[in-house]
Amino acid sequence: MKAVRYFGHKDVRVVNDLEKPTPKGDEVLLKIGGAGVCHSDLHIIDEGTVGDLVFTLGHENAGWVEEVGDTVTDYKKGDAVLVYGPWGCGHCKPCQQSKENYCNHQSELGYGGGLGLDGGMSEYMLVPSSRLLVPIHDLDPVIAAPLTDAALTPYSAIKKSLPKLMPDEFVVVIGVGGLGHVAVQILREMTGAAIIACDVTEDKLEFAKSLGAAYTVNSKDADAAEQILKIAGIQKVKVVLDFVGATPTIELGTKIVSMDGDLTIVGLGGGYYEYSMNGLPFGVSMSNPYWGSRTELMEVVGLARQKKIHIEIEQYKFDQANEVYDRMRQGKIKGRAVLTP
Amino acid sequence: MKAVRYFGHKDVRVVNDLEKPTPKGDEVLLKIGGAGVCHSDLHIIDEGTVGDLVFTLGHENAGWVEEVGDTVTDYKKGDAVLVYGPWGCGHCKPCQQSKENYCNHQSELGYGGGLGLDGGMSEYMLVPSSRLLVPIHDLDPVIAAPLTDAALTPYSAIKKSLPKLMPDEFVVVIGVGGLGHVAVQILREMTGAAIIACDVTEDKLEFAKSLGAAYTVNSKDADAAEQILKIAGIQKVKVVLDFVGATPTIELGTKIVSMDGDLTIVGLGGGYYEYSMNGLPFGVSMSNPYWGSRTELMEVVGLARQKKIHIEIEQYKFDQANEVYDRMRQGKIKGRAVLTP
Amino acid sequence: MKAVRYFGHKDVRVVNDLEKPTPKGDEVLLKIGGAGVCHSDLHIIDEGTVGDLVFTLGHENAGWVEEVGDTVTDYKKGDAVLVYGPWGCGHCKPCQQSKENYCNHQSELGYGGGLGLDGGMSEYMLVPSSRLLVPIHDLDPVIAAPLTDAALTPYSAIKKSLPKLMPDEFVVVIGVGGLGHVAVQILREMTGAAIIACDVTEDKLEFAKSLGAAYTVNSKDADAAEQILKIAGIQKVKVVLDFVGATPTIELGTKIVSMDGDLTIVGLGGGYYEYSMNGLPFGVSMSNPYWGSRTELMEVVGLARQKKIHIEIEQYKFDQANEVYDRMRQGKIKGRAVLTP
Amino acid sequence: MKAVRYFGHKDVRVVNDLEKPTPKGDEVLLKIGGAGVCHSDLHIIDEGTVGDLVFTLGHENAGWVEEVGDTVTDYKKGDAVLVYGPWGCGHCKPCQQSKENYCNHQSELGYGGGLGLDGGMSEYMLVPSSRLLVPIHDLDPVIAAPLTDAALTPYSAIKKSLPKLMPDEFVVVIGVGGLGHVAVQILREMTGAAIIACDVTEDKLEFAKSLGAAYTVNSKDADAAEQILKIAGIQKVKVVLDFVGATPTIELGTKIVSMDGDLTIVGLGGGYYEYSMNGLPFGVSMSNPYWGSRTELMEVVGLARQKKIHIEIEQYKFDQANEVYDRMRQGKIKGRAVLTP
Repeated sequence: MKAVRYFGHKDVRVVNDLEKPTPKGDEVLLKIGGAGVCHSDLHIIDEGTVGDLVFTLGHENAGWVEEVGDTVTDYKKGDAVLVYGPWGCGHCKPCQQSKENYCNHQSELGYGGGLGLDGGMSEYMLVPSSRLLVPIHDLDPVIAAPLTDAALTPYSAIKKSLPKLMPDEFVVVIGVGGLGHVAVQILREMTGAAIIACDVTEDKLEFAKSLGAAYTVNSKDADAAEQILKIAGIQKVKVVLDFVGATPTIELGTKIVSMDGDLTIVGLGGGYYEYSMNGLPFGVSMSNPYWGSRTELMEVVGLARQKKIHIEIEQYKFDQANEVYDRMRQGKIKGRAVLTP
Repeated sequence: MKAVRYFGHKDVRVVNDLEKPTPKGDEVLLKIGGAGVCHSDLHIIDEGTVGDLVFTLGHENAGWVEEVGDTVTDYKKGDAVLVYGPWGCGHCKPCQQSKENYCNHQSELGYGGGLGLDGGMSEYMLVPSSRLLVPIHDLDPVIAAPLTDAALTPYSAIKKSLPKLMPDEFVVVIGVGGLGHVAVQILREMTGAAIIACDVTEDKLEFAKSLGAAYTVNSKDADAAEQILKIAGIQKVKVVLDFVGATPTIELGTKIVSMDGDLTIVGLGGGYYEYSMNGLPFGVSMSNPYWGSRTELMEVVGLARQKKIHIEIEQYKFDQANEVYDRMRQGKIKGRAVLTP
Repeated sequence: MKAVRYFGHKDVRVVNDLEKPTPKGDEVLLKIGGAGVCHSDLHIIDEGTVGDLVFTLGHENAGWVEEVGDTVTDYKKGDAVLVYGPWGCGHCKPCQQSKENYCNHQSELGYGGGLGLDGGMSEYMLVPSSRLLVPIHDLDPVIAAPLTDAALTPYSAIKKSLPKLMPDEFVVVIGVGGLGHVAVQILREMTGAAIIACDVTEDKLEFAKSLGAAYTVNSKDADAAEQILKIAGIQKVKVVLDFVGATPTIELGTKIVSMDGDLTIVGLGGGYYEYSMNGLPFGVSMSNPYWGSRTELMEVVGLARQKKIHIEIEQYKFDQANEVYDRMRQGKIKGRAVLTP
Repeated sequence: MKAVRYFGHKDVRVVNDLEKPTPKGDEVLLKIGGAGVCHSDLHIIDEGTVGDLVFTLGHENAGWVEEVGDTVTDYKKGDAVLVYGPWGCGHCKPCQQSKENYCNHQSELGYGGGLGLDGGMSEYMLVPSSRLLVPIHDLDPVIAAPLTDAALTPYSAIKKSLPKLMPDEFVVVIGVGGLGHVAVQILREMTGAAIIACDVTEDKLEFAKSLGAAYTVNSKDADAAEQILKIAGIQKVKVVLDFVGATPTIELGTKIVSMDGDLTIVGLGGGYYEYSMNGLPFGVSMSNPYWGSRTELMEVVGLARQKKIHIEIEQYKFDQANEVYDRMRQGKIKGRAVLTP
């Protein structure tokens, strides 16, 4: 079968002769409908972060059950499903609570399909356990694939802060890209907080307004922090969600977050911040969450089925994989690219 | 000054010679902008539930600060404010957390202005402490007055259940009247749950749809519970909010609520339910909350200032008070009636 | 192999010729160390609540892994484990969060081993999935078996109320029997609340004091509610845990619980209560939880391994099963009876 | 009256001629029973952190109501009370929830009595509002004074993490001094988590064991992190409470905290940490809380009245103030020093 494979540093090739796997035990074979293309792929391809492994790319996967192992009872051929991405051990306490993103054995296990093990840029994908599937019912797998990361990651970051996102508070979203533009929609639907969106171009800011931001501030402005504090007033910003994670965006966050607030850094922009007792306001929780849980993905599917969130999709064929990665390197992808067989 | 006074069972009169009070210590005198008319008033007037007291009616009050006592530092003449309704002792633990609705001394104290003490259907109203005021900034007091009860009460009931109101869950609102129609809007803005609205007339159900309900069911239908369970599926309804509280609506709630769900009875409809181990599904929390807290009222003001909720207003003069109560007895008020000086 | 089997209403027999099962797929075969005897067994035996099923009794089970199915990777022969009792579908949202006690498919599935399916009063027991096992490491299975119900059930009921069990609040435990005497210990270890224990005999009350109750009240006293309210003062009792669940104990709970408090009825005593808007104080959450979750059982094991809770054990052989049930009918079991092979 | 006054950098003097204040409005005059001596005083005295202010020292104060302003209704002469320390505006949302430690106006207001305004090392102390008092009933003010900071600060830090402090988890307390030794006791009473205490001397570690620590590790050991991880196993440490806050202790915390855990830095040791996406495990919440809320102080009083926590006291006279500060500079105070008139 056809697949987009990682063969080593900067070496991605489309092959046609990969063997179609056969599911055993609790395994499930999926016929792939769509596989999302993510910036994390470029970390793997361009920086070689996973070492010498050879595997099929694609960690945002959706499709239809094709065949199930002999102990699988809850899925049958044709069921439309998403593949939950961060595969844990399945048995430790976090995994038993569906939080495989925080599996105790994460460092030993690697990071799931498309991130070291065979992923979904392939006609068929073998999923190691039916517990990693989430039914999507009437949703189209091509459209639904990016929910598994581009929606789940901001969803989980926001959910952690829901008790602080009350309607008399302000929330700042830094970076209105692949994840950030979904964050704005989730905040609009699930919280009463007033949304202030930050990005560096006017059309990203316009886009944020169209999605529900009440205010926008260009984070390139030297006085961006002052502009935001003027909007929020003396109570400052209760929750800052940084989808960039570079040193300047982290700095911006520290200047605007309120005492007892949340400063959540989702973006893997490699930024630094010197933490000290005179830095952040008292009581701020600073954290860098990772992806989300299985049941949070169920909830994301709920949002999508109700049409409360929408991810902009550009659709391509597997054969165009390298071309798509190039477009992504050049910042030309609008929304999310999805590869289909 | 002019005021709408309760003189006893079925005896409400508009007087013109009430003395204007002078605030002392932490007291604040308000110039009333609007005072909401509530069904609870009819309990007092028609059923005589408060006994022999004589007082000015009106417990949904908004206006402008006119004069402050000598120890008040945080308000000045002209500030637009709401009056928080359930006046507690101010010192017990619930009051220190702003939950005066659950003040330990509630049974000794009576229930605040317009409910035994002088309320806001008056040109000026004396509020016993500045802690009972909530600034509304640019909101019009006439429009804002009903926020203090018709919005705060459903808000507090919903807030308690927020962790259960995830986007893959269903919530049922029974009764789309004064409080219920605000509940639908709050749910739409602050949760991802799919809203099922129940009422007994088609235009109430249409109204609910226009406010954000995804589904409607006529609760007079003999198979209303079956209709709802068909929508929600095997997971049933996670949260039921009953704004009627009559025996049939409570029964309906018990049939549709899921295990580990919330059955919250807000309406004071006098219903009964025989609780037993074979009745409600396991783990259901059944409760009858009362009003809301001071800081929840701040949050409600946040919703209103962002135009995320809207209460339909019919505006009348104090002199029309008895006429308005009559219209209310006949079910002719659409939304909320507000009296103005 | 030897087993204690239910053959129908009032018909329990010890057999010697039951076939030893062989685990397949994700199944695990346990060599039983101990199987706790529970009042729920008497509901099955004496009231015939499960109908015509024939099965091995015992739903509080502990032992050692004997053999695993071919897809089980996380357990090996000799591992000491508990068997989690309420077996769900394993795939719905509650099950994915480890809350199989609230599985969406509970009504279709029956209630797990010893409650309709073969349980643990047997030399070997087949557990349908390794996800239902909890490692106990250095704990003795004979002693640990009752943790699965007699400790897990009160643990889960208490955990739900932890945010209300602050050190300036009071908690009442009604019934210091098999579950209640563990509840007192859990409250002592995990909360700062002052414990008031209620039971009907002096030595149960003495027992409660020795386990950590600060106060005791004989619930047979006509003025039991007044005695409790005198202890708690005007704030009343924040959390009431009723391990009896008879009409008089439920009534007692409704008289002492505070506004915004929890009235949690764990005991299956068949009591009734007429719920109305004039009954419970405002804001009380009334609920009847069922058992606990898989990860809560892990936490209970944590308490036991740290020797923070202790269950009194009487040890018997499988052959003595009917004798033990008789002693239980006569109220002669002190603490918990455990059967061993 | 006699008072211990700060006159400027390194200039503390006992005066005898300070005028006794008279309470007005909502003010309360206390007859001081005891005023705790805190390391924060040395920051003020030795580092001159408050600038040119002249005021009476003492921010851990307890005593009896002597006289009340004309609008105070809830206290009368002779009532034994604590003085809540971080005085906020009393009106912003955090203050309305009793969290004056996070008052929106904190930066404008300074930090309350003994920290810039007149404190409690004085025969009489004027408290600006009765809302800042917490009744202690039968507790001795001399013993209770340190509850206001040495107990409230760790209490609030621990309370924030209670949902993570389950009995199968580990908690590390770094620094078993004035606050840390109370933290160990609060953890012992209110959580089931296994306590690992760290300090640099053997008798501090022995002390920690006597108070409830299950394990101790000398944090001077080069392999302290490895020792702790060996105890906790693969799940690592869910909550780290650092009561030192120096660079090495913060580093230690970052090495042992688990994914999704809490790293809470309470100590004002002036440490630094370079935060980056490759530093802390994913999902860790890093925070530096400040003091606690008014209602948390009520809860602390609950712990003390139940004798669940105990603070070691050394008692001195006001005239010995400079001698006591010297002993503190030399690390010679065992537990907490309290000055009395």
